[in-house]
Amino acid sequence: MHFADKLVRRISALDNPTALGLDPLPEHLPDFIVKKALKEHGLSFQAMAEAILRFNCGIIDAVADLVPAVKLRFAFYQAYGAEGLRAYQETLRYARGKGLLVIADAKLSECGSAARAYAQGHLGQVEIFGERLPGFCADAMTVLPYLGSEGILPFAQVCQDEGAGIFVVVRTANASADEIQSQPLGDHLMDEHVAMLVEGWGRDLIGESGFSSVGAVVGVAYPEEARRLRHLIPNQIFLATGYRSQGSSAKKVRACFYENGTGAVVSVCKPVLLAYQQSGQPAEAYADAAREAALRIKGELARMF
Amino acid sequence: MHFADKLVRRISALDNPTALGLDPLPEHLPDFIVKKALKEHGLSFQAMAEAILRFNCGIIDAVADLVPAVKLRFAFYQAYGAEGLRAYQETLRYARGKGLLVIADAKLSECGSAARAYAQGHLGQVEIFGERLPGFCADAMTVLPYLGSEGILPFAQVCQDEGAGIFVVVRTANASADEIQSQPLGDHLMDEHVAMLVEGWGRDLIGESGFSSVGAVVGVAYPEEARRLRHLIPNQIFLATGYRSQGSSAKKVRACFYENGTGAVVSVCKPVLLAYQQSGQPAEAYADAAREAALRIKGELARMF
Repeated sequence: MHFADKLVRRISALDNPTALGLDPLPEHLPDFIVKKALKEHGLSFQAMAEAILRFNCGIIDAVADLVPAVKLRFAFYQAYGAEGLRAYQETLRYARGKGLLVIADAKLSECGSAARAYAQGHLGQVEIFGERLPGFCADAMTVLPYLGSEGILPFAQVCQDEGAGIFVVVRTANASADEIQSQPLGDHLMDEHVAMLVEGWGRDLIGESGFSSVGAVVGVAYPEEARRLRHLIPNQIFLATGYRSQGSSAKKVRACFYENGTGAVVSVCKPVLLAYQQSGQPAEAYADAAREAALRIKGELARMF
Repeated sequence: MHFADKLVRRISALDNPTALGLDPLPEHLPDFIVKKALKEHGLSFQAMAEAILRFNCGIIDAVADLVPAVKLRFAFYQAYGAEGLRAYQETLRYARGKGLLVIADAKLSECGSAARAYAQGHLGQVEIFGERLPGFCADAMTVLPYLGSEGILPFAQVCQDEGAGIFVVVRTANASADEIQSQPLGDHLMDEHVAMLVEGWGRDLIGESGFSSVGAVVGVAYPEEARRLRHLIPNQIFLATGYRSQGSSAKKVRACFYENGTGAVVSVCKPVLLAYQQSGQPAEAYADAAREAALRIKGELARMF
């Protein structure tokens, strides 16, 4: 089935546009999980991978009926080499098994056969010796636009083949995004130029929902930009990043959405993963604390409309 | 030791600016290697990874006294999941053990803690639970500039700490590079704007050789651009990509170099890996054929000056 349609339907069914970020840094992991992993595997990447996987599964169990999607930042898994990738793959599988959509936030970029390799490895089937074996089987992934069409269309083709999606990084939430993304090209900015390219790349992948499976990553830190971009590429779902929960962030993210509450999925990580630390609950209650936080954020996002 | 100094010294000692691309696609692998791997591991990513590793080690043995560096495209390994990453890691280790410098061509991009995770995983030591374990330990890696300084400086910091290097993608060799990289910003182009950023990012990492450990990826397909960029950022080593060997390509790559033959390292892959197929030699002779091809290309590149 079509990725954007699936995502829109699931957001609507759960009345919640959250993509929960599963970006477990070592300092996020509860002591009791770390100790068990170290006891079983010694100080090793395998211990780290086991601890991450156990932590992730607890979080997924706690929120699977509540949030439509999870987002895994590839960097935090790849750092632990082959063991890290096993935790990545197992987390993806577990989340999908619980009915969650999975967005692989890998921010990858390549051309030609290397782009196909990245796309098939993340989203589809990988061909070896004439047979096809499943890769990570994420539902969608993030990609970078700097190489132009040849760096995106191989990913889009795999999306077409597999019912998957991509989110092209258009406007990031970090302070130095301006150095490239806000550079003026005549009467528009670089991020708008990229947005218009994204619109073209996604035109053949628009589903019944009216949204394309080629979406855009848009940081919530710049609501003016988000508003301009929301207007410019109406068929793209925005993966809104940098949402901090509460305060000004909750107002800013509004610019990524349409009046009717569609058009975006909001990545939220630390307020949920670290809820047990922030609320002073015991580590053993990390999953319950995460669920409470996810419910609170669902409410925050609903109150925007 | 300082990455750029190491690379310059090794290029000079071997009188050869080649970075051999180890990008083994399934169709590149000799039958006898594939059959052995399939017999031992069945049709699996493990078989693929074993075949790649065995092929790579044969190539490395054949050229280690001849080329200063190898370049591994992460995409072609990551496609095979955790098994692929094991082949990646083992290839890196084997190449380094033979005295080769290793460039991880992963084209990654992240900010903040995720950028540190990518950088430490590829170039350095990865911290878990207060201890530091070795990551892939590549000598250098490729990164993308779209997120601005915050997407580069965490990598540059790891370079500083570990004596490693990065090559920032400035101008790629593919046809659609123009869509973003040649967009005009007032009186200069986007790729020149990025080049000037790269110059700034690399200023604190200039070694005794006069070159910075923050280099630039520049495609050989656009010699006019390469010439402009060569002039604009004199302290950057260019990782020249898209070199096809022979024909017009050999003339074009000249623009990445200084008159004295320094300033660039040239990535070459298929003409070497596929030399046995292209010259009609038996598969068993693939390593010898690769050595002959690498020697021929060394001659081609030397004749430029």
